[in-house]
Amino acid sequence: MGQIVNSNAAFLSQQLNELGYNVLYHLTVGDNPNRLRKIFNDAISFSDIIITTGGLGPTQDDLTKEIISDCLSRKLVFDESSYSKIQEFFQKINRHMTNNNLKQAYVPQNSIVLENTMGTAPGFIIEDLGKIIVCLPGPPKEMKNMYLNLVKPYLSNKSENIIASKIIKFFGLGESSLESALEDLITHQTNPTLATYAKDGELSLRITAKGKSYEMTDSLINPLIEEINERLGNYIYSYNNKSLQEVVANMLITKNLSISLAESCTGGLLSAKLTSIPGISKVLDRSIITYSNKAKIEELGVNKRIIENYGAVSKETAIAMAEGLKKVTNSDICVSITGIAGPAGGSPEKPVGLVYIGISTNKGTLYKKFNIHGDRTRIRNYATLLALNMIRQTIIN
Amino acid sequence: MGQIVNSNAAFLSQQLNELGYNVLYHLTVGDNPNRLRKIFNDAISFSDIIITTGGLGPTQDDLTKEIISDCLSRKLVFDESSYSKIQEFFQKINRHMTNNNLKQAYVPQNSIVLENTMGTAPGFIIEDLGKIIVCLPGPPKEMKNMYLNLVKPYLSNKSENIIASKIIKFFGLGESSLESALEDLITHQTNPTLATYAKDGELSLRITAKGKSYEMTDSLINPLIEEINERLGNYIYSYNNKSLQEVVANMLITKNLSISLAESCTGGLLSAKLTSIPGISKVLDRSIITYSNKAKIEELGVNKRIIENYGAVSKETAIAMAEGLKKVTNSDICVSITGIAGPAGGSPEKPVGLVYIGISTNKGTLYKKFNIHGDRTRIRNYATLLALNMIRQTIIN
Repeated sequence: MGQIVNSNAAFLSQQLNELGYNVLYHLTVGDNPNRLRKIFNDAISFSDIIITTGGLGPTQDDLTKEIISDCLSRKLVFDESSYSKIQEFFQKINRHMTNNNLKQAYVPQNSIVLENTMGTAPGFIIEDLGKIIVCLPGPPKEMKNMYLNLVKPYLSNKSENIIASKIIKFFGLGESSLESALEDLITHQTNPTLATYAKDGELSLRITAKGKSYEMTDSLINPLIEEINERLGNYIYSYNNKSLQEVVANMLITKNLSISLAESCTGGLLSAKLTSIPGISKVLDRSIITYSNKAKIEELGVNKRIIENYGAVSKETAIAMAEGLKKVTNSDICVSITGIAGPAGGSPEKPVGLVYIGISTNKGTLYKKFNIHGDRTRIRNYATLLALNMIRQTIIN
Repeated sequence: MGQIVNSNAAFLSQQLNELGYNVLYHLTVGDNPNRLRKIFNDAISFSDIIITTGGLGPTQDDLTKEIISDCLSRKLVFDESSYSKIQEFFQKINRHMTNNNLKQAYVPQNSIVLENTMGTAPGFIIEDLGKIIVCLPGPPKEMKNMYLNLVKPYLSNKSENIIASKIIKFFGLGESSLESALEDLITHQTNPTLATYAKDGELSLRITAKGKSYEMTDSLINPLIEEINERLGNYIYSYNNKSLQEVVANMLITKNLSISLAESCTGGLLSAKLTSIPGISKVLDRSIITYSNKAKIEELGVNKRIIENYGAVSKETAIAMAEGLKKVTNSDICVSITGIAGPAGGSPEKPVGLVYIGISTNKGTLYKKFNIHGDRTRIRNYATLLALNMIRQTIIN
């Protein structure tokens, strides 16, 4: 019914690729016995390994275990150890164990039971008909934990090849420009292969090589990275799939540069992204979300007349915010963002998407003006990325 | 390869359900001609409507259009109007149109061409073999825009039934407790049906009814909502699928209650969530992310001795932060959060996940203590939800 976005498929595909397995299909069905049966039989007919997620829980529409056992003519048997772990789990989180949870202690006969340390439903592995069937719980945290701790070691023992990949991240470049700049490399690719991805303003290039060892895959990938760096190095902020906030946070921490933020239209999004990175507390002094003009004046000492004469969204206000923050905190890097996130508040002179970003350091203050297209979410998100990139450039220069 | 999470499938399923279509399968394959062909032929054999996303772009691995045309024995023809729109698009975003973009101006013969106002690749609809085939671009913004403006009107004309659903949101209750409390209703469901979903600390119950008109589906759904409200009303914060931040923001705006925030461990996440809601600028004065102790003292006037004696993560500091913020801003509701998000910084007395939330209003100050389990992301996210729920309760009481 579209209530849940399937993030499990992407996680498992990425993991399986790393182990050298080619993922051919993702198949999804609702909690319907006939369609579950059809899709499972299809999957087993064209793949060697079948991994399922979901449908192992306590509720009545959790059917995966029952259908798969039936397809493979196996009984479900009561598993004492799973039962006691389910009991323990409820004690730990201090909640009453309702009766429907008992169903989760049943597993297919002769399967390898996978303990669920993050939840109640155990998973299991069945080896049958020359195939491997792995059934994992649906909640992403339980699934990931079970995969990484129990299934990954199991599957890596069965694989001959490894697939290694590096992900290069770009900012300030469109996806088709990236493809054009690398067209000759992409056309003639076999091993390694190249693929581009764009998401929420971040552009990635994945270079993937297959080989018997990491030495072999490295020797295939590294010359290509050098070539790409020569062509597009200016746009690259990570050679190992780090997010922009992770790169910036780590630069700040490594160089021990203190930072403070003054956000208006992004409303804390820049702070939230930076503080998602562990260790940032060493360098982030404070962040002041001056949503109202009053707050801009009181917290940052922005001159009332600047706001009256030029407006809260102006280069003058952005500069005054950054410089005011510098006076208050004396952090090495002081960043200001002011803009119009919409949907309301725009005008012909100052349309929705107009954003000014200021940065004040000991060397002085600079600002940049941007016109970001898209809706409120995109404008706030992209303004945050632009600010992160400006911080990055400030640190480099 | 798992680089992209498929959010398109969930969006389309939700949309199609609203129009009364049952979505039976999601099928995903990589850019491989044979597997694309197999999956398309499968889909057409067991469904009346097939919707594809992705593979319409300018790059060499975009194959969807070519394979589907081939399966249906249709030629690809040059579409003059699509071509000039692609040219316009590149002029508008001020980027050079590379040659590979030309491929996007070709569409299957005798198809309904769907203009892409957010990007370059047009979509199309083919009516063939008594089936409807809809091909949409992959980037979610382009796909959603094209679906909502062009495909939805087309498909709603073809549907007889409508499916209506209401989503009730709960906080402070586990999924299995919810199921147990409603077991009798869930067991005997046919029309309407009930389904529970848990995600990132928010728990939803979807009630879905099928009927010829909205009057009919309402008369099926409303008595059930009354019954659920009687049993679990205390835990319900929305009867129409609003997020907790949306409910809280709208309560604040409607009642014209000013608010300011002082965040530590959540680092701006509460501010970012509240400011994601349009109109919040009317009531949100400011938010001060006092990550360092220095900032807590300077910005909020927290007494240095309180931090020295009780620590930055303590009920005393939480109260002092909320009361300090109240003095500085005089907002109606002043919220403070201080805690240990981890992974480092925990101790036996103050473990990772310990969070204090304070609220200061004209009536006085209260605080609550929480022990949140999970990783840094979960702790920060759940602390934010707990704070939102405390704000909600403060407004109600």
